[in-house]
Amino acid sequence: MRTTTENAQLALLLEVSGTPKPGNVDRVREYPDLRFEHFLAGAVGAREGLAMAADGAPVGAAFVRAVEGMSGQSGGNTQFGALLLVTPLVCAAADGALSPESADAVVDATTVEDAADFFRSFEHVEVAVDDPPASMEPLDVRRGAEAVPAVRERGITLGELMADSADRDGIAAEWTDGFPRTFAAAERLQSLDGPVTDRAATVYLDELASTVDTFVVTQHDRETAEEVRQRAAVVRDGDEDVEAFAEELVDREVNPGTTADVVAGALFVALERGMEV
Amino acid sequence: MRTTTENAQLALLLEVSGTPKPGNVDRVREYPDLRFEHFLAGAVGAREGLAMAADGAPVGAAFVRAVEGMSGQSGGNTQFGALLLVTPLVCAAADGALSPESADAVVDATTVEDAADFFRSFEHVEVAVDDPPASMEPLDVRRGAEAVPAVRERGITLGELMADSADRDGIAAEWTDGFPRTFAAAERLQSLDGPVTDRAATVYLDELASTVDTFVVTQHDRETAEEVRQRAAVVRDGDEDVEAFAEELVDREVNPGTTADVVAGALFVALERGMEV
Repeated sequence: MRTTTENAQLALLLEVSGTPKPGNVDRVREYPDLRFEHFLAGAVGAREGLAMAADGAPVGAAFVRAVEGMSGQSGGNTQFGALLLVTPLVCAAADGALSPESADAVVDATTVEDAADFFRSFEHVEVAVDDPPASMEPLDVRRGAEAVPAVRERGITLGELMADSADRDGIAAEWTDGFPRTFAAAERLQSLDGPVTDRAATVYLDELASTVDTFVVTQHDRETAEEVRQRAAVVRDGDEDVEAFAEELVDREVNPGTTADVVAGALFVALERGMEV
Repeated sequence: MRTTTENAQLALLLEVSGTPKPGNVDRVREYPDLRFEHFLAGAVGAREGLAMAADGAPVGAAFVRAVEGMSGQSGGNTQFGALLLVTPLVCAAADGALSPESADAVVDATTVEDAADFFRSFEHVEVAVDDPPASMEPLDVRRGAEAVPAVRERGITLGELMADSADRDGIAAEWTDGFPRTFAAAERLQSLDGPVTDRAATVYLDELASTVDTFVVTQHDRETAEEVRQRAAVVRDGDEDVEAFAEELVDREVNPGTTADVVAGALFVALERGMEV
């Protein structure tokens, strides 16, 4: 019987091991400077923060510790988004039954200090982000810990901060609405048969085909992200080869990271709900 | 900066991710009932026992806990041998500098209770073993916890038990002689360049070519094990294709597990000595 912490760590490992997972690092595709082994080391290092969440630590403190540990490898940002999605779910599981409602309760209970820790997490790793709206400029995450006074002054909680970004960030959207894609994807994972990493790859493709990946919007533009969504739908329907699509996205350096993050969250939920490995 | 426990867990994950690794499960080759994901779950579950070793627990108690945790997946025996090799090294690292001498000291300090725990570990997982010599029959590991009274009666320590098997078991041989292959392979890992999982695959092939794999002897026979060693040397020298060799061994279900275990141990030593990921 795995603990909640173990399920969270295993979810990160299973996520990166699903293949093919067009555009992202997986078991058979990697980039010269961002390799499979960096994700393994990221998952190993993240565990301590996940264990804090499972032990009842505030979501912000647990998250910043997880990111710090994740960053102890030379590949850079491996699982920042996945941890941002999984950490509140671990907090919810620690409190009792994991559900959209309990996850919502964790988000509602976040504090200004959680928001400050979220900014501090950017000290540990470089994350691709868009420029914020002008009014939010003092809260540009790229300021890292320097933004903490502005966070305190505005008295904004981590939940409120996420709500402000929900229209342009897929992870923030999950935070704001009871993690709907994550829980739906978890049900889909549990409804499928076969190796878990194959199921994760299937669900990844489904998600890629159904929702524009906001990381691709940030990394490239909305047009590219919409093209990827449409192409993923064609691939999912069997009208284009998934391996060729995977090669193409890697060549174009199109990395639908938000979609992968949702699958990581879904794997955690499914493991907590008894999915066997 | 990773902790000793984190390095031990990462070593298990890096080991299974090296590819091609002829005959064993790796990132691209698996068996229907023993898959890559089982090794991920095994590494996640083993961590608690490895942490006990790093915190100064007796090697037997740490090992049995690691095996129990490793077994919490449906693939069966994933990392029993690797844990048997890595656990005393973690104990040695916990005491100070990790070296053949400090590892030897851990082995010399083992007790009858460590031997009892070793037998108890077989309660958690099915491990392929040969029949013991007639005089050792009461100490057949397949008896599991039932053998504990015989262990106590004979007053045999875990170090002594390993010495008794050193001539027919590659892991026991490491225990008995200051882990010579493990430390030499660690130096080789550190001397190579490139992705760590590629280096692990290179060292695996070197080891497979240089020393008969005792797990293959147990699983098949000495003739098969010797043939595999010779073929590995041909492959290493570039006179046969490694991918074809890997396919063939998987097809024949020839699994040089002891060689993989030595690489796992070597990865741990190299990580402790500062090898970057």
